[in-house]
Amino acid sequence: MKYIEGGVTAAKGFSAGGMYCGIRKNKSKPDLAMIYSSAPCAAAGMYTSNLVKGAPILVTKRNLENGTARAVICNSGNANTCNADGEEKAWSMCEIAGKALHIDPHDVIVASTGVIGQVLPIEPIADTAPLLAASLSGDGSSQAARAIMTTDTVVKEAAAELEIGGKTVRLGGICKGSGMIHPNMCTMLCFLTTDAAVSAPVLNKALRAVVADTFNMVSIDGDTSTNDTITIMANGLAENPEIQADTAEYEAFQEALRGICTNLARKMAKDGEGATKLLVCKVSGAADLDSARKVAKSVICSSLLKAAMFGADANWGRVLCAIGYAGTDTDISKVDVSFRSAAGTIGVCRNGSGIPFSEEEAKKILSEDEIDILVSLGDGTSSAEAYGCDLTYEYVKINGDYRT
Amino acid sequence: MKYIEGGVTAAKGFSAGGMYCGIRKNKSKPDLAMIYSSAPCAAAGMYTSNLVKGAPILVTKRNLENGTARAVICNSGNANTCNADGEEKAWSMCEIAGKALHIDPHDVIVASTGVIGQVLPIEPIADTAPLLAASLSGDGSSQAARAIMTTDTVVKEAAAELEIGGKTVRLGGICKGSGMIHPNMCTMLCFLTTDAAVSAPVLNKALRAVVADTFNMVSIDGDTSTNDTITIMANGLAENPEIQADTAEYEAFQEALRGICTNLARKMAKDGEGATKLLVCKVSGAADLDSARKVAKSVICSSLLKAAMFGADANWGRVLCAIGYAGTDTDISKVDVSFRSAAGTIGVCRNGSGIPFSEEEAKKILSEDEIDILVSLGDGTSSAEAYGCDLTYEYVKINGDYRT
Repeated sequence: MKYIEGGVTAAKGFSAGGMYCGIRKNKSKPDLAMIYSSAPCAAAGMYTSNLVKGAPILVTKRNLENGTARAVICNSGNANTCNADGEEKAWSMCEIAGKALHIDPHDVIVASTGVIGQVLPIEPIADTAPLLAASLSGDGSSQAARAIMTTDTVVKEAAAELEIGGKTVRLGGICKGSGMIHPNMCTMLCFLTTDAAVSAPVLNKALRAVVADTFNMVSIDGDTSTNDTITIMANGLAENPEIQADTAEYEAFQEALRGICTNLARKMAKDGEGATKLLVCKVSGAADLDSARKVAKSVICSSLLKAAMFGADANWGRVLCAIGYAGTDTDISKVDVSFRSAAGTIGVCRNGSGIPFSEEEAKKILSEDEIDILVSLGDGTSSAEAYGCDLTYEYVKINGDYRT
Repeated sequence: MKYIEGGVTAAKGFSAGGMYCGIRKNKSKPDLAMIYSSAPCAAAGMYTSNLVKGAPILVTKRNLENGTARAVICNSGNANTCNADGEEKAWSMCEIAGKALHIDPHDVIVASTGVIGQVLPIEPIADTAPLLAASLSGDGSSQAARAIMTTDTVVKEAAAELEIGGKTVRLGGICKGSGMIHPNMCTMLCFLTTDAAVSAPVLNKALRAVVADTFNMVSIDGDTSTNDTITIMANGLAENPEIQADTAEYEAFQEALRGICTNLARKMAKDGEGATKLLVCKVSGAADLDSARKVAKSVICSSLLKAAMFGADANWGRVLCAIGYAGTDTDISKVDVSFRSAAGTIGVCRNGSGIPFSEEEAKKILSEDEIDILVSLGDGTSSAEAYGCDLTYEYVKINGDYRT
């Protein structure tokens, strides 16, 4: 597989777009996105584990039960969650999109992101959807990506292509927010598309496998949103022989999907609210995969470590501390820790105790904007990565007064 | 029981003090504390659940195995944790204190708080301990409390007295830091004393019962320190008939201990790093105690809610969100939420959905420095409280460059 330009419209037959409809006060930022496939799609989705689920999730889940979909409608600025009329409004969005695109409303994926507990005004969506539908284009991916952004500061898209059965298959996606397990309140949303010929059950299998070690390994602030949603639509226009589970073709497809999701997950973590740095914790030498993931997540979630990374302070004791409360059966006396970035690598802890290191060199390494925290547990052969960001003044500012 | 002035020296026979010995660079802040009982004590302790345990904890645990103690020595500025020679140094501190106070070093409780992974210099402690021992006094509680502070901004002490068997029994304590389960890296330490006559097993039972719903319900930032320690010493000088488990006298003693610990826990939470506000989440109507505690802790730990409280923003969706990922079996459609402070009470959510409220009034209520977040689950009769604080720019500042 190789990465290519584009996002959710890289695959054949997909068009997308975004417009300002009037949910947000700020007219300079689009707040309604649409994605459309010219052919019917197999589809799969995954949703937040929070007991409080956004109304759009209930509707999308129902619509995807038959494994088909053809379009996405998504607004930003209002999460349509904890509203008495939420489900009714979410279904209205499907009807509005279905009418504008001349498709069955049951084939619409609906999502919302923004403030919880404020009634969603449906009129702006109803008024704008026909115009938006008419404007969709094969290079509208970044417009759609922009329209689903809330506190995001950069558009997040990725695309790739690979050969399957002699045919070029493309896949791509857009996302916003941060994390699936520990996302930001402003919600992680990811919409993936592919022109691969693949059934809904196989698509579902691949999505679940990949999300576990990409989006589910992102944490910005430990808060699991009510609206997290990731969906994938496959329209088969690449005309490859249909991908069957547990074949070489399936593996290739899953690896490409993993590539796209890793790429988007890193972009989300790096654009975490107020973040100045991407943090990647790479755990190796774990007794099993579960331990590796727990340790990586624990380190990346530590507020104290996140604040230290903001200050480029090599306070490795906080890494050890987070390993210690990860809930795994770790022998601390075997743990090694290093920091790595484009400026070099520096060892700071060996066998659970500090080793002498140059503070000046450490400062230089930690002043880069992508930092790897390397943890070796000396206890086995399993490994995992988790993605996060530093904790900054800006995070507090953004969240101290998010609603106004 | 009634609260009285004082702290760790309120009970008969206890003296304490604090001095600058030279572990910290800043000479204006004392960094070595000592507490001493003129009579032998029954004693009990509880320690961090982190797998990484400070060396002093290993030594204190061993010393308290026989249920007796007579003194505390504690330094700030260096945690003596993750050092190859940590245990040896912690034991040296016991020997130094034992020699200075003419007691068995096995009867010394030792603790350290500060940066992890830097070798503890023992000379400053050895040089200063004899002077400190000679200076201990019956009104030295706040000096000792000051000497164990790290990023704390206020001295934390509390004391109370009650009648047991016709005798006046006093108890009191000092603490620093924040929380036992989710404490600040700079560590929660609490030293309690009483002149009650009570055996070590009974003392241990009372301590465990009380810590579960006081210190263990505090969270500042979700990081469980490596050095958290709470100990209690009882010297019997009140001459009450020895307190037996499961008697009215035991209940009275435990309630007084709970009062002291609640008081100290609230002080710790309010003085959380960078905090401007104490947050107390009061959960009622839970199906069982475990659910009530989990929900209260989850709300108090949400970075997003903490930042909103800093901004006096009534973003109740974040309360619902945190309830939703608390890991309990909660029916969200029965949940009510209100905010309360000295300025009044305001309902913001009923039956899981938003209700109209005055933003202006909410702002006024949330601008106070002690906020109750009232959550009613409508599912039973259990209740719990958790203690935390807001998330501020100052937290980031303190932790972005803690070591320098």
